[in-house]
Amino acid sequence: VSETPHEPLVRRLLEGDRAALARVLTLIDRRPAEAAAIDALLARRTGRAGTIGITGAPGAGKSTLVGSLLKSAVRRNDRVAVLALDPKSPFTQGAVLGDRLRMEHTTADERVFVRSMTAETRAGGLALATPFAIRALDAAGWPWVLIETVGVGQTEFDIVEAATTTVVVMTPGTGDEVQSVKAGLMEMADVFVLNKADRDGASCARLDIERAVHHLPASAWKPPVVETVASEDRGTDGVWDAIARHRKHLIDSGEMVRRQQRLLRLALHGLIDADLQQRTNSLLASDEFSSVLSHLQSGDCDLGGATRDLLARLLRT
Amino acid sequence: VSETPHEPLVRRLLEGDRAALARVLTLIDRRPAEAAAIDALLARRTGRAGTIGITGAPGAGKSTLVGSLLKSAVRRNDRVAVLALDPKSPFTQGAVLGDRLRMEHTTADERVFVRSMTAETRAGGLALATPFAIRALDAAGWPWVLIETVGVGQTEFDIVEAATTTVVVMTPGTGDEVQSVKAGLMEMADVFVLNKADRDGASCARLDIERAVHHLPASAWKPPVVETVASEDRGTDGVWDAIARHRKHLIDSGEMVRRQQRLLRLALHGLIDADLQQRTNSLLASDEFSSVLSHLQSGDCDLGGATRDLLARLLRT
Repeated sequence: VSETPHEPLVRRLLEGDRAALARVLTLIDRRPAEAAAIDALLARRTGRAGTIGITGAPGAGKSTLVGSLLKSAVRRNDRVAVLALDPKSPFTQGAVLGDRLRMEHTTADERVFVRSMTAETRAGGLALATPFAIRALDAAGWPWVLIETVGVGQTEFDIVEAATTTVVVMTPGTGDEVQSVKAGLMEMADVFVLNKADRDGASCARLDIERAVHHLPASAWKPPVVETVASEDRGTDGVWDAIARHRKHLIDSGEMVRRQQRLLRLALHGLIDADLQQRTNSLLASDEFSSVLSHLQSGDCDLGGATRDLLARLLRT
Repeated sequence: VSETPHEPLVRRLLEGDRAALARVLTLIDRRPAEAAAIDALLARRTGRAGTIGITGAPGAGKSTLVGSLLKSAVRRNDRVAVLALDPKSPFTQGAVLGDRLRMEHTTADERVFVRSMTAETRAGGLALATPFAIRALDAAGWPWVLIETVGVGQTEFDIVEAATTTVVVMTPGTGDEVQSVKAGLMEMADVFVLNKADRDGASCARLDIERAVHHLPASAWKPPVVETVASEDRGTDGVWDAIARHRKHLIDSGEMVRRQQRLLRLALHGLIDADLQQRTNSLLASDEFSSVLSHLQSGDCDLGGATRDLLARLLRT
């Protein structure tokens, strides 16, 4: 059996070669169609990493917290990879976050690996590429993968939720607690971080969060509330302690297997969506589509009927 | 032939009943599946409205401009409907923009109709509902439909582009011109508004825009640059003049037909996506999907093979 073109690359990735890892992540980001083929080569080496999704309202200080978590990890001699998800909007062009994080770590510390993913949101790019990127980092031996998002769209929300540990960041006095309950954030949090905890209202905010947690259905894991002032690197070690305790709980309770299934589920969903989107794009570019449009405009058929005809053709191809 | 449940409602809409129009828009927003059936009843009455998409970088003053355009229209005794697109994010909960606009027009002026659409982005809601909402407003006899977006995602971008006249809003001294060239905004603009034109750098910004327009492929329509200070209602009449001139150009050149096709195309695309998404959701909830996940996790199959199997099932249903 001959080697696929990706085999030597993946072999180097599995041996811990950073350049090979970077190259694989670029392939996944730029050519998501090849992601499944690459994944097949490294799937057996996945399942060991703890993935940490960082979420919270804009302005809660997520980026500062991630920067502080990296410094704390290096102090503790832990190894951490960061995936900064930065959906491209027509106005931002993406890639802001990863560049900034990378700049802060120009020393190229061997214990840190920072990567931004800027796939086009339209093509479902992030939803498709991110689960594969997480699995590649896992297979490359990174024990922790931090996932930070710039956007707060549904895609980024799903990805954060697919982490094995979800960290929800809040700040005192902003009403974040109420918003978060509405947004369903309370239910998905494994660890709460009360950032900017030196501000007025921190103790009230802590009480609000604890009260909200108290109202959730009872479970074996009680999400702790960790106070930080990330801009001054205060409290961040405590966040790592809480994350590590949660990971141990997942492994001991057998819940880890279910969490890793969420990531596979997201990867499958991404692959299915990408295929359907490709079929749809071909259909939109077809002569039959143009002809249906003309019939619609002249009133010869209606949108419901036109949709049924076009779908029948799409499903046949 | 018996009446469909929507027939009396659509009849009242076509007679100019505002309450019926509001009810139809709610149906389209909440139950997009019924949008095609409603559209079939009013399709023959569409094609007269000029739809105006307002876009530009965050902070360019789009909302203020829309407010000022409404005041100007009322002064000119024109009738204008506004569709404020406000994609729901888990954090914002949507509906901010429409509420604000509505507040400004509590007098319930008969010449103005404001409506916000807050469909969930995930379900492709906005992409599905908006073209139908535009067509309903058109059929109800509104000569102008203004479309404003809060978000700057691809969906809102597409919708603005599907307007018959696209207005791109910029401000001096922000480098918007450069960003806009990158984002492809220059190519889609029919009218440029240089807002906050009392700021330093306005004449430079105007020159930059005119230079960028000059480099575009020659066309019969040369997008004018209109200077405004929307916060003081200055220059907004000139925006209406430019929009009206552009509409006349579209009709005279026969281009209007092609522009209206873009909206139909968007509606069809939305309906096809919605159907495929429903099939995907059923698949994700199926026993077969759970079983594939287990096989994946135990290493019995890989993601590529699993995707092919699941797609085959989805396309058969």
